[in-house]
Amino acid sequence: MPKLYIGNKNYSSWSMRPWVLMRQAGIAFDEVKVRFDSFAPDSQFKRSLQGISPAGKVPVLVDGPLVVWDSLAIAETLAEQYPAKQLWPQDPAARAQGRSACAEMHSGFTALRSHCPMNIEARLPDIGALVWRDQAGVRADVQRLVELWDALLQASGGPLLLGRFSIADAYFAPVCMRLITYGLPVPPHIAAYVERVRALPGVQDWIAGALAEQDFRAFEEPYRLQR
Amino acid sequence: MPKLYIGNKNYSSWSMRPWVLMRQAGIAFDEVKVRFDSFAPDSQFKRSLQGISPAGKVPVLVDGPLVVWDSLAIAETLAEQYPAKQLWPQDPAARAQGRSACAEMHSGFTALRSHCPMNIEARLPDIGALVWRDQAGVRADVQRLVELWDALLQASGGPLLLGRFSIADAYFAPVCMRLITYGLPVPPHIAAYVERVRALPGVQDWIAGALAEQDFRAFEEPYRLQR
Repeated sequence: MPKLYIGNKNYSSWSMRPWVLMRQAGIAFDEVKVRFDSFAPDSQFKRSLQGISPAGKVPVLVDGPLVVWDSLAIAETLAEQYPAKQLWPQDPAARAQGRSACAEMHSGFTALRSHCPMNIEARLPDIGALVWRDQAGVRADVQRLVELWDALLQASGGPLLLGRFSIADAYFAPVCMRLITYGLPVPPHIAAYVERVRALPGVQDWIAGALAEQDFRAFEEPYRLQR
Repeated sequence: MPKLYIGNKNYSSWSMRPWVLMRQAGIAFDEVKVRFDSFAPDSQFKRSLQGISPAGKVPVLVDGPLVVWDSLAIAETLAEQYPAKQLWPQDPAARAQGRSACAEMHSGFTALRSHCPMNIEARLPDIGALVWRDQAGVRADVQRLVELWDALLQASGGPLLLGRFSIADAYFAPVCMRLITYGLPVPPHIAAYVERVRALPGVQDWIAGALAEQDFRAFEEPYRLQR
């Protein structure tokens, strides 16, 4: 059985992607949660990953001789291992779009990521309104996100980014969580896509896990003093 | 014939990856250079990419109905289109390592990328020494790079990261250029790998193109007033 090492479900956007992908696609795995204490070299977190993740980060997928230590690499590896699941669409042009979108997410949207860290249990619309007012980079990131999702939904016909559920929806699920937590403004058809992602059983399972944690980590909480 | 849109060869590290990959692997393509003037919405650069790259960035691969607008997505697409080229190794565990390493590069090494922008024609060892002294993030990035390359070279037996030439070497080629430009210190066996990458014909061709440009762009030059 493959093992997926993840961080706190409330906070770890990188971990959420492959977990939701596997759960939603019906790929069985054992979850190993490595709770965030700190990211210092001598932290419990870093010590727990020694000998498992060469990068000292989560997520990591370990499957027999395979060790995959990055969320996008995990997605590509799973797409290869489980062709029947069609984690990427079969049409090459749609697959190229999906890969481009996920890789763009992987390297970009840094303003949104740094100003609106994932925090599933929190509701921070007032913080979101301030961020929206003051951070042009966040507005630009959300504008690009809306353009990107709009183009993919139009090309595929929906209901999800590439038609049926794919790596792309798992990849953008953490961004959907951010839009909800911070109440960032998006057009109605984009908000409807966000709701469709939130309603996916695999996403619901992750959210339930996040809400059950009740684990406040100050270094992941720029906007709250306590839960 | 596929078309690859790229930026200035002296500066565009993202463009270098798929160009070197295709050239070194012997995949024919037409190069379309979109010179950097600025990245403002009304720049010649952005206008040239309108209707081609939905992200408004380079590189972009256009191949019939396929439009691939991210360097990692281009690499995965080419690996699929040209299986005989073995752009990824055939061993699944080695392939998982290669994918993890490239995806880690795609989203990480931000201190190295921001403090040591690629500038192939320049030689800036004094700047590099200051950056090395003052920027702990750059030292940490280079330390991780050395660990990563060391592990891959040991696992594969070399001479390149995954044995023979692969996507991974194309992906780290711009980092090799940065190490050379800024004279950052690495152990001898890592410096030897950097030299092997520099000597690849596909990399030599890119470097020759970069040196021929003689095109000074102030916004890509934090350390020089002129050529």
